[in-house]
Amino acid sequence: MDSPWDELTLAFSRTSMFPFFDIAHYLVSVMALKRQPGAAAMAWKNPLSSWFTAMLHCFGGGILSCVLLAEPPLRFLANNTNILLASSIWYIIFFCPCDLVSQGYSFLPVQLLAAGMKEVTRTWKIVGGVTHANSYYKNGWIVMIAIGWARGAGGSIITNFEQLVKGGWKPEADEWLKMSYTAKVTLLGSVIFTFQHTKHLAVSRHNLMFLYTMFLVATKITMMITENGTVPFASFEDTVSRMLFGWQQQFSSCEKKSETKSSFNGTGSSTSKPIADASDTVKKKHTKKTE
Amino acid sequence: MDSPWDELTLAFSRTSMFPFFDIAHYLVSVMALKRQPGAAAMAWKNPLSSWFTAMLHCFGGGILSCVLLAEPPLRFLANNTNILLASSIWYIIFFCPCDLVSQGYSFLPVQLLAAGMKEVTRTWKIVGGVTHANSYYKNGWIVMIAIGWARGAGGSIITNFEQLVKGGWKPEADEWLKMSYTAKVTLLGSVIFTFQHTKHLAVSRHNLMFLYTMFLVATKITMMITENGTVPFASFEDTVSRMLFGWQQQFSSCEKKSETKSSFNGTGSSTSKPIADASDTVKKKHTKKTE
Amino acid sequence: MDSPWDELTLAFSRTSMFPFFDIAHYLVSVMALKRQPGAAAMAWKNPLSSWFTAMLHCFGGGILSCVLLAEPPLRFLANNTNILLASSIWYIIFFCPCDLVSQGYSFLPVQLLAAGMKEVTRTWKIVGGVTHANSYYKNGWIVMIAIGWARGAGGSIITNFEQLVKGGWKPEADEWLKMSYTAKVTLLGSVIFTFQHTKHLAVSRHNLMFLYTMFLVATKITMMITENGTVPFASFEDTVSRMLFGWQQQFSSCEKKSETKSSFNGTGSSTSKPIADASDTVKKKHTKKTE
Repeated sequence: MDSPWDELTLAFSRTSMFPFFDIAHYLVSVMALKRQPGAAAMAWKNPLSSWFTAMLHCFGGGILSCVLLAEPPLRFLANNTNILLASSIWYIIFFCPCDLVSQGYSFLPVQLLAAGMKEVTRTWKIVGGVTHANSYYKNGWIVMIAIGWARGAGGSIITNFEQLVKGGWKPEADEWLKMSYTAKVTLLGSVIFTFQHTKHLAVSRHNLMFLYTMFLVATKITMMITENGTVPFASFEDTVSRMLFGWQQQFSSCEKKSETKSSFNGTGSSTSKPIADASDTVKKKHTKKTE
Repeated sequence: MDSPWDELTLAFSRTSMFPFFDIAHYLVSVMALKRQPGAAAMAWKNPLSSWFTAMLHCFGGGILSCVLLAEPPLRFLANNTNILLASSIWYIIFFCPCDLVSQGYSFLPVQLLAAGMKEVTRTWKIVGGVTHANSYYKNGWIVMIAIGWARGAGGSIITNFEQLVKGGWKPEADEWLKMSYTAKVTLLGSVIFTFQHTKHLAVSRHNLMFLYTMFLVATKITMMITENGTVPFASFEDTVSRMLFGWQQQFSSCEKKSETKSSFNGTGSSTSKPIADASDTVKKKHTKKTE
Repeated sequence: MDSPWDELTLAFSRTSMFPFFDIAHYLVSVMALKRQPGAAAMAWKNPLSSWFTAMLHCFGGGILSCVLLAEPPLRFLANNTNILLASSIWYIIFFCPCDLVSQGYSFLPVQLLAAGMKEVTRTWKIVGGVTHANSYYKNGWIVMIAIGWARGAGGSIITNFEQLVKGGWKPEADEWLKMSYTAKVTLLGSVIFTFQHTKHLAVSRHNLMFLYTMFLVATKITMMITENGTVPFASFEDTVSRMLFGWQQQFSSCEKKSETKSSFNGTGSSTSKPIADASDTVKKKHTKKTE
């Protein structure tokens, strides 16, 4: 049965990313790089290093997945067309006279369009990563999730690492401790597409790609308009984490015992120490909520 | 000739690590992670990052050897069974109500049993690494030693690197400057098994595995009971290093000359500078010994 | 036609690096390591770590190119002969009584000879890297340039990274922000040899190797004699960068507008901020020149 809906989603899932969506992705990535303090100054002092950083911002996810799968990280350099495209965009953004691109990009509609198109490329990257990982490990579904995640959201990890090497690491920007909204939603998408690939999810891929992309674009644009970084499914997360990891009640209740017990043996104290401030943080959360 | 001794060692060398010894290894690794200050608090705030760190603690050696041999570092994720086993152990240890596992683990006999079983897995890892490296490089005995070492003791290097990336690097815990006892004894075992593999050591492998494992377990348990971190073969090391690198006498005697000489040329001073404090450290050692 | 010139360059391009030029390369690299403050002291405290650092200094370029092409980074360890050669040189330099090698190396002619021979090995490395990368990617000329560059000058990047891991990172020594003369000239050579390999440069390879090596040795020795680190082709660079990235005039002229404009929209200010200090640095440059 090919209903108009199926025809639409099928045609959508066959859209080629190459010229326009890639351009939007490079535009958003390089603009994000230029927003960093001192980036433009570095581009004047040392264009090569700035170009390298821009390439890391544009192709970071692919590089990370190549590293994780022991493929040549330089393989993205072999794709001359995309490299030249990204380089020209980097050149225009950084060295255009009168800074016209930044002027034009500073208008909201342009930003919304570019950000929406970039989110579309994210879906394609996740699907590509999952399929690629499956060609390596037949039933390694954990690997498929990891690679899809790396391709979709790995750019930020790569750029953080690059800033760490450069010495300009901003601890509030690191992805290790608290995942950004992008990392979370990309992980969700990677899980969904992996299950679809392993036939645990009885949905046709093009429908899933269409729906997930719509979800991505809608949430991204709403977050950009109502300039808040709050995650739409925070409540869902909260329930899951409470279900999985949350036994604060009996935990903090028998915290006293362990404290008292730990006075008998030397090692127990060292173990119960971190748990103590763990429950402290939990209590802090509760007090925040009650206020 | 299959004497009872041979039968015993042969049966021992055919023991499967999978269910129980691996569990002990994961238990010791994750408990070591939980002992770190703030680890439990991080597990409450961000379970995913804590899980990732636990996996690095459990599979660090394999990951390092994969990186060194340009194999996919994610390959350990393809082994779903071990991943689920380690994840469940991580889950029980961190989120068990009333912290029962830490309570039970804080008793010495349990720790001794787990640590002993973990040492047994070390031997298996070294042998596996040496054999695996030999399948790549026929007569690259240096590579065999390095891979055996990485599989056996590489976990600490990986976890140090991961702490470095996270920004929580403890310089007194780094493996670069002074090797831990584990790294030393693993290097020794890697050298021994490499020589056995290249037929320079006329001992059957199962006997060697049995003896080396016994040595590992005995030294580990004695070190845990008599809570001292002193290396049993410090004297052996001392003689070797004195034989290879120790000419303090004539060195420090002709240090004066070089000092005086170095006043004539510009570069000499920069060279003799580090050597000077080198001999200073040597002198310090001597004064320590004489006191 | 084989003129005497062709015969000379052909014979030169067939010179084997193995015994003598490699020795010079290892000698210069390990001496550069020993010049670092505290290196000799570390060699006394922990010979293994010092040996590892020395190997990184000697084989850094090859390791980096292996990493970039997803080949085993340990492959250099499989070449037992070179490893033993470099290790013996490391041993002699660090542990020779009365520090004879440093004494001898502190004389200028010896340094000039060793440095010149090391520059010769650089050409061979670049050519080897370009050819090796071409065997992977037929028309990936960007990859060829990158690999030739990595083989030729990647050692410094590797050693910087190793110092970063060790915690002893010196920000004035990092290769990211401002490229050293070596990095620049190696990049130039890599570009030249890549174009020669892709038949865009109608020069026979042995002629090119001869000329480029002569250029390398001459510039290196002149820089060592007239102890100035100024780049010979600074003027060429200046014109190119002015041609490509330099529109300071109209740029700083319409900087005012963007400043004023940026008061209307929130994001514009964040974008024009780095550009502002970019133009500041530019103005600083101008004032420097005028003084």
